[in-house]
Amino acid sequence: MSLTAEILSIGTELLLGDITNTDAQAIAQTLSELGINVYFQTVVGDNPGRIKQAVELAKSRADLIVTTGGLGPTYDDITKQTLAESFGLPLVLHQPSLDRIKAAFARSKRVMTDNNISQAMLPEGCTVLDNDWGTAPGVAFEAQGKTVIMLPGPPRECEPMLRERVVPYLAAKSDAVMVSRNIRVVGLGESAMEAMVREQIEQMINPTVAPYAKTNECLLRVTAKAKTKEEAWALTEPVVDDLSRQLGEYVYGVDVPSLEAAVLEHMKERGLTLSAAESCTGGMFGERFTSQPGSSAVWRGGVCTYSNDLKTSILGVDAELIRTKGAVSGEVARQMAEGVRRLCVTDVGVGITGVAGPAASEQKPVGLVYVAVSDAQGTVVKELRLSRGRERIRIAAVVNALDMVRRKVLGFAIQDAMNI
Amino acid sequence: MSLTAEILSIGTELLLGDITNTDAQAIAQTLSELGINVYFQTVVGDNPGRIKQAVELAKSRADLIVTTGGLGPTYDDITKQTLAESFGLPLVLHQPSLDRIKAAFARSKRVMTDNNISQAMLPEGCTVLDNDWGTAPGVAFEAQGKTVIMLPGPPRECEPMLRERVVPYLAAKSDAVMVSRNIRVVGLGESAMEAMVREQIEQMINPTVAPYAKTNECLLRVTAKAKTKEEAWALTEPVVDDLSRQLGEYVYGVDVPSLEAAVLEHMKERGLTLSAAESCTGGMFGERFTSQPGSSAVWRGGVCTYSNDLKTSILGVDAELIRTKGAVSGEVARQMAEGVRRLCVTDVGVGITGVAGPAASEQKPVGLVYVAVSDAQGTVVKELRLSRGRERIRIAAVVNALDMVRRKVLGFAIQDAMNI
Repeated sequence: MSLTAEILSIGTELLLGDITNTDAQAIAQTLSELGINVYFQTVVGDNPGRIKQAVELAKSRADLIVTTGGLGPTYDDITKQTLAESFGLPLVLHQPSLDRIKAAFARSKRVMTDNNISQAMLPEGCTVLDNDWGTAPGVAFEAQGKTVIMLPGPPRECEPMLRERVVPYLAAKSDAVMVSRNIRVVGLGESAMEAMVREQIEQMINPTVAPYAKTNECLLRVTAKAKTKEEAWALTEPVVDDLSRQLGEYVYGVDVPSLEAAVLEHMKERGLTLSAAESCTGGMFGERFTSQPGSSAVWRGGVCTYSNDLKTSILGVDAELIRTKGAVSGEVARQMAEGVRRLCVTDVGVGITGVAGPAASEQKPVGLVYVAVSDAQGTVVKELRLSRGRERIRIAAVVNALDMVRRKVLGFAIQDAMNI
Repeated sequence: MSLTAEILSIGTELLLGDITNTDAQAIAQTLSELGINVYFQTVVGDNPGRIKQAVELAKSRADLIVTTGGLGPTYDDITKQTLAESFGLPLVLHQPSLDRIKAAFARSKRVMTDNNISQAMLPEGCTVLDNDWGTAPGVAFEAQGKTVIMLPGPPRECEPMLRERVVPYLAAKSDAVMVSRNIRVVGLGESAMEAMVREQIEQMINPTVAPYAKTNECLLRVTAKAKTKEEAWALTEPVVDDLSRQLGEYVYGVDVPSLEAAVLEHMKERGLTLSAAESCTGGMFGERFTSQPGSSAVWRGGVCTYSNDLKTSILGVDAELIRTKGAVSGEVARQMAEGVRRLCVTDVGVGITGVAGPAASEQKPVGLVYVAVSDAQGTVVKELRLSRGRERIRIAAVVNALDMVRRKVLGFAIQDAMNI
């Protein structure tokens, strides 16, 4: 399957800049993983003439057209009408979809107005992509040698529809199935990661391996193509194993959603509990860790001690130490980690203190951050020199802290640990 | 000036879905505020033929073409070449730009490679849009009856360039200047806000007034057009005053960056200090408040007590109360707020406890959250019924807490306060 696709986003709110076009990105990612080339994305408003113009252009240069938006019940939702007309298909009532819409209204005890019926009017002979995340069904059809897929605009509907409906639909049309695996890496920059595996990944054909950079982490995506999902998966296995072994302790997980999810899993397995004392990050470590459902199995709590006297009164940090070494010091980070571990009665305690900026403090530079992790075996402290503004400094401090916890829990060495 | 514009985003990373197209949104917003209609946005990769095709199409249907991306030094940065060629303009060396680029490299002690010179090759006769946020200058020119503006792709360059370079450039071409003011509102939904002022805003011509929804808040944007900035500003004044008066206590600020910024300002003015005890939000209140530079003037610290025994041991919440009423109760929120105010020795203390989900707890429904705010005058508690998933519930809880602090500090009533 070497298709060419065009993404067509429909909605005046996009042209006005009221919303970010995250749908286009999600679709582009999905198509890219399926090995489908996207050459153009177009955004157009809720205007029949201009939608038609964009559709005709897309038909002239792509095999597959994926649209989002304009499937709702109101008069300005005209995607289906315009696409169906362009391909010469009448819209007909799809009773199962109407039943689903009626049931959804009944469940949420809302009154269903007549214009909602229009959401069940679908191009004749189309494949209906059931929408379990909203009311408007998605649609796929083939006509005039082209494939058309129409998805609802709200990202919380579009994204699961992509994963659960579009990928299987396109896979079924193809004689090949793609499987992607993500080797997630922390503590290495993208180029350093690439350098460690470049020779190997350059000669790969199936699976292919591509490096990606994310905020303070990176990943290798291994994508295999085969007749069945099982075969494709099997093709990825030795490559994922091999690359994971080469990248070693920098790999925090394969196909895991996030670094905090990996830490949560490792600690849950071992029955360990966690707490954190934060200064410059102001609660971001706790916020990020508890963004995960089920984090209460590991996370007991934390303290944000922004002012120095609270570091002493709540955490028991030596006031004399703060005076001589400064609140931004490895020694204070250590006492914060040990103090919060004691206060919250946890197996592992984290301490973070630093200068997030924009103003320097204690004559110390913006971006200087100390992170300490304490457990029954002792306390490890690390000095970080971060940059790129207050927000990026805070995020990088949290990622480093998470990685130090991961390493401590798994018994890995913590690089550049300070000897204090 | 009733121009039609087309936004052209250039970069293969957009087609692959590696990055979100936030530039297109920022440009769309800016053009919309200038009263310029955008009918199409196109995304195209770093491919000369397809960029040319997109440019020709844009020329055929728009007066103004705004591009982002492809201005960098590497071989795949071909935006300027392609646009200049399309409009028959040669690229010539712009010495001041080259000097700026050289100076930037010298300042950061990086070695400047030859390909960086290409960034100073600009279309003959163009207006140079100096880039103070990166190396590649922006470009504007008029040719063949069209106006072309080219901006660098990185959002941290594109966004300030828009504000500082593009708006003045387009304003200078016009005989009118636009001024936009934002009346920021919390505690009212967009439609409720609109209903309060609909009649008035519908009949406005200059300034115009438009409602916008943001996460858990909304705003009215008042935009005036006049010969000078001062005149335009003066036109907004009575309208902003009038609308602010009508919306009353729901307005948390005019032209302020965020709700937390308004709270920080009000508390700083009054010399008040703040702390928070968080449960379901896990540190998000502290994280959001301390995301602001200078927040240490007000924020002393906080506690995240996820587990019940820490609510008792650290904050002094009555263990018996937790047993009888549950940790998710107005009474516990009250004791958390009072406890953290005592522990952190602050003028105002916040307590947040609730069920963020996805699992219910204590037989209480997901989305049930109690927020308490305590100061020397007493403690106010509010019950919230939130929805739309863990993350949205946590954000809404934090926004409600910030608004309650604002109301308490300003002496406004807190709606739906519980009598416990």
